[in-house]
Amino acid sequence: MNAVQEHPLHLDPKARKDARNRLLSAKGHLEGILKMLEGEPYCVDVLKQISAVQGALDKVGQIVLKSHLEHHVASAAQRGDTARMVDELMEVLKYR
Amino acid sequence: MNAVQEHPLHLDPKARKDARNRLLSAKGHLEGILKMLEGEPYCVDVLKQISAVQGALDKVGQIVLKSHLEHHVASAAQRGDTARMVDELMEVLKYR
Amino acid sequence: MNAVQEHPLHLDPKARKDARNRLLSAKGHLEGILKMLEGEPYCVDVLKQISAVQGALDKVGQIVLKSHLEHHVASAAQRGDTARMVDELMEVLKYR
Amino acid sequence: MNAVQEHPLHLDPKARKDARNRLLSAKGHLEGILKMLEGEPYCVDVLKQISAVQGALDKVGQIVLKSHLEHHVASAAQRGDTARMVDELMEVLKYR
Repeated sequence: MNAVQEHPLHLDPKARKDARNRLLSAKGHLEGILKMLEGEPYCVDVLKQISAVQGALDKVGQIVLKSHLEHHVASAAQRGDTARMVDELMEVLKYR
Repeated sequence: MNAVQEHPLHLDPKARKDARNRLLSAKGHLEGILKMLEGEPYCVDVLKQISAVQGALDKVGQIVLKSHLEHHVASAAQRGDTARMVDELMEVLKYR
Repeated sequence: MNAVQEHPLHLDPKARKDARNRLLSAKGHLEGILKMLEGEPYCVDVLKQISAVQGALDKVGQIVLKSHLEHHVASAAQRGDTARMVDELMEVLKYR
Repeated sequence: MNAVQEHPLHLDPKARKDARNRLLSAKGHLEGILKMLEGEPYCVDVLKQISAVQGALDKVGQIVLKSHLEHHVASAAQRGDTARMVDELMEVLKYR
């Protein structure tokens, strides 16, 4: 069984904490949009708020991606799992 | 005072309900990611979940945008506020 | 036969000229990347140049979209082809 | 002077050739749009063609990125330039 199959490549604790705080804030923002939708909002105001949440999620994704590159992808050659790490990352980046 | 300044162009009730249901589901998904981050997740799994929520928000944005085009933009020439409606929409689309 | 089936909704001449000039410049930029690739460029420099061309094409798309909204979508209710115009536009925006 | 400052991390020849062929095809496509714009095209047809070229450039970017991850980022820990490689890559990915 190799290292990657066992998934020991956990998200770095500092990045995890940062991601968690930002996701909590994005969740609060989302709840604000849900509240807006109980009233009679103007479409463009809803679109702006959705864009803001998307921007916050982009930022969370960047934090996780950066940590993954630093702690796991940059050491792939040392571990010997480059092909697997790269294929997996390309797959995830395709949907950004 | 013109119609747009008063913002009577409310989001259509059907689109609003659909958007609301999908945002509730996106919120549940976000809460799932927050739970993941209490443990020791693998970075790529977090990235995949963030992409999934982004996809759900994209879909909400499409519903609101389509409703706005149908109910408000398509009738802008009749109301006489085309320039304003278009500028406002281009501004919002820039950040997608 | 209705107006849309005959496609009389041509791109506005001013937007067409602007789009043309910007596409010519994007083409020149693309030729620069092709020249880079005859040598031994650094990957990140190639990625930066590709992003720059994408940005230029985004701008061309915005010009054409804005003109389309102003000249054709905003008058859809007057012409009576709202559903068709909106479906078609949503389809195209999905791929942005 | 370290390895990265000298930029010896050239794009892999196989990826370079593939990128070059695809860029040549994208350039042909762009020339097709320029020809369209000499006539009186329908806005949505122009938008579709621009999207198609963007898709082709996305694919070129993916090829270069994948090669960069495989040949340079995955071995950053071995070379000792992880921080630099990651910062540089995050900067480039931000604009996708």
